[in-house]
Amino acid sequence: MDADLGLPVSVPSTALFTDHYELTMLQAALKAGTAGRRSVFEVFARRLPDGRRYGVVCGTGRVLDAVENFRFDEDVLRFLRSRGIVDDPTLEWLAGYRFGGDIWGYPEGEVYFPGSPVMRVEGTFGECVLLETVILSILNHDSAIAAAASRMASAAGDRPLIEMGARRTHELAAVAAARAAYIGGFASTSDLAAGFRYNIPTVGTSAHAFTLLHDSERDAFRAQVDSLGRGTTLLVDTYDVAEAVRTAVEVAGPELGAVRIDSGDLLLVAHRVRRQLDELGARNTKIIVTSDLDEYAIASLAAAPVDAYGVGTQLVTGSGHPTASMVYKLVARAESDDPGAPLVPVAKRSTGGKTSIGGRKWAARRLDESGVAEAEVVGTGPVPEALADRQLLVELVKGGEVVAREPLDVARERHRAARARLPLSATQLSRGEPVLPTEYVHGGSGN
Amino acid sequence: MDADLGLPVSVPSTALFTDHYELTMLQAALKAGTAGRRSVFEVFARRLPDGRRYGVVCGTGRVLDAVENFRFDEDVLRFLRSRGIVDDPTLEWLAGYRFGGDIWGYPEGEVYFPGSPVMRVEGTFGECVLLETVILSILNHDSAIAAAASRMASAAGDRPLIEMGARRTHELAAVAAARAAYIGGFASTSDLAAGFRYNIPTVGTSAHAFTLLHDSERDAFRAQVDSLGRGTTLLVDTYDVAEAVRTAVEVAGPELGAVRIDSGDLLLVAHRVRRQLDELGARNTKIIVTSDLDEYAIASLAAAPVDAYGVGTQLVTGSGHPTASMVYKLVARAESDDPGAPLVPVAKRSTGGKTSIGGRKWAARRLDESGVAEAEVVGTGPVPEALADRQLLVELVKGGEVVAREPLDVARERHRAARARLPLSATQLSRGEPVLPTEYVHGGSGN
Repeated sequence: MDADLGLPVSVPSTALFTDHYELTMLQAALKAGTAGRRSVFEVFARRLPDGRRYGVVCGTGRVLDAVENFRFDEDVLRFLRSRGIVDDPTLEWLAGYRFGGDIWGYPEGEVYFPGSPVMRVEGTFGECVLLETVILSILNHDSAIAAAASRMASAAGDRPLIEMGARRTHELAAVAAARAAYIGGFASTSDLAAGFRYNIPTVGTSAHAFTLLHDSERDAFRAQVDSLGRGTTLLVDTYDVAEAVRTAVEVAGPELGAVRIDSGDLLLVAHRVRRQLDELGARNTKIIVTSDLDEYAIASLAAAPVDAYGVGTQLVTGSGHPTASMVYKLVARAESDDPGAPLVPVAKRSTGGKTSIGGRKWAARRLDESGVAEAEVVGTGPVPEALADRQLLVELVKGGEVVAREPLDVARERHRAARARLPLSATQLSRGEPVLPTEYVHGGSGN
Repeated sequence: MDADLGLPVSVPSTALFTDHYELTMLQAALKAGTAGRRSVFEVFARRLPDGRRYGVVCGTGRVLDAVENFRFDEDVLRFLRSRGIVDDPTLEWLAGYRFGGDIWGYPEGEVYFPGSPVMRVEGTFGECVLLETVILSILNHDSAIAAAASRMASAAGDRPLIEMGARRTHELAAVAAARAAYIGGFASTSDLAAGFRYNIPTVGTSAHAFTLLHDSERDAFRAQVDSLGRGTTLLVDTYDVAEAVRTAVEVAGPELGAVRIDSGDLLLVAHRVRRQLDELGARNTKIIVTSDLDEYAIASLAAAPVDAYGVGTQLVTGSGHPTASMVYKLVARAESDDPGAPLVPVAKRSTGGKTSIGGRKWAARRLDESGVAEAEVVGTGPVPEALADRQLLVELVKGGEVVAREPLDVARERHRAARARLPLSATQLSRGEPVLPTEYVHGGSGN
């Protein structure tokens, strides 16, 4: 335990992103001889956030990193031993841990619905149960952000969206949020760590502090243009917007790249600023708006002369739904301890909600004659022939080896395409039911 | 750029938790000769989340780590250069960067109100402007979680709260959330990384998967008790609760540590389970409830025979308010580039909200005759004598050196004490105004 670790927490491995009970369950199962039973865990959401029409699977690439890096090294084992969290045989088992099973899942960027088996983790109970927390952390966070980003991207149409929410969320959640926003359709981020880690384009404008630092707004604009060029974006709402716009064009000339408006009635101000810029001959100077935007505010500016949106708080907090509520449930396991024992479906059965459907599942999206999605079909047993080529689960990890790495742009394009195939009502911002019904086909024993 | 970095993102330094524009503003200010102007930045929240009575300052200790670790090493500089984010003179300046200024702030765990100057960062413009994003990320996230935790702790009274939300938030945000929850009054966490990093007690029970893995509930309970002892917590709602409780006591005996109920009408079920446990002679077996609890659900269980609460989603998402909306604003700066130039207050003045109050501020909490807080007093200039010993800002960093490290338990106890000195209405869960008014005293020039 290195108490001197600064931030970011330099955790030696993702194996610490684990809940205490996963290790104690492992210990008990090892002792009982059941830890080796072949098991199938499924990640799914019982429902979408209230009123949302579709979900967006996001974080898959990060899950693959996490699984690959999930090891109990000496530091972690020492910690577990010193705290007495598990016994010696369990520590020994953990020391040799390496996930050797299979993971299937909806590919990143794909949409999902209530009950969609977005990820399926198969292996021994012991090797699979340990991954619960880290897989859910990643998928729940990233999918929540991507879903908000996707709605914002729909609302923005062809206008680019800039992610600038780092200051409103945990510093590393911010990096994942920028990644999720990019997959959901954002064009760029303000977060340098996200640029560094994921190669997402980074952009920036200027803050009120920069203007306030200088003796006049003119001095500030001149300093910025001198250093960053005429293509820069000047922030025009520190004092009086009309005066600032006049000064900005005087200082930078009509080649001024853009102005940013960060307060006030954006609809009204954008119209006024556009008119003023045009009158000053700065017809190509763009207008970027920021200030607590969400998908509704973006939509309300559709007819305004706005060229780009900067979105912060509402993006990184999932626009009212900061987590995707996915769960990780055992849905099938070997009938007995025999190595070749067949799988049997299992499920919680108590009353009081939270029941789930047992069995190892496939999923497919049925399209109508015009190629528009009409149902999410989830089943156990054999896949009906008509749906065979519409299956959603792809192989991500095979025998412990990651087999499905892909560039971020592939997931981003996949999301665009998947959304485009949904019924038109999918992109309505109004609250409503999931845009596709989930149909269950019970076709077999869960094998 | 190491593309092989797994999770957690092993960012070489906290300097990457920075927005693009902070670096370009620095570049422009360096060129204009204004980057060296002495500046005072202030962190404050314009308002509390809607309906909340008080805020909780949290993350201070993490800010100190971040500032100390804020360096532009070769990897980061290479990234900035390759992307053309800033020019060579700026890169050179960054290579030698080390914060050398002063930071004052409300000590961690203290409560705050709209306009409270919770942190004040002083130094040159260049050295201070770079810290904006990382400081806000930490304070906004951690304070949001601590505020929710504090309300839950009030609602829970003497009953312990277990933080178990890691799976519902980003894997590293989860570690910070567990820390914030502990400061806000939680007793323990399920998150091993939080135990490892911050020495917070970790606890665990069992999941439905463990019961489903076994051929019967009895087998599962026996496996758990055999390995973890009679003091363990058995999960009793996989099938039928009454049957599970009977089986649990048969297997573990009346010394059974606890049972956990994770679904259904918790009030009703807790009463039934308590009666049943008592009838079975398991009078000391505790009842732990979980299942989407928030402060309201906790309060509604006050009269139920519940011994501990496990809280997940609502804790890590700030119970409806996942960010504290703090901002980082330049409030004063040197009048000119002369080394000894006096500070002048500065503030954004445009219409459209978002205005702030300029000047380098002090803050004090005025108490009434009975020692109960009656106002948050914020001012510039000299501190009135009557408030001199009630000042809230303490020195955290002096000339670049961290001078205020403290154990987590100190912040936890400070929060308990600060909350206890608020008017009684502070702990009402109903929506309302901030429990203290913020009064401004304009006493001077901002020096």
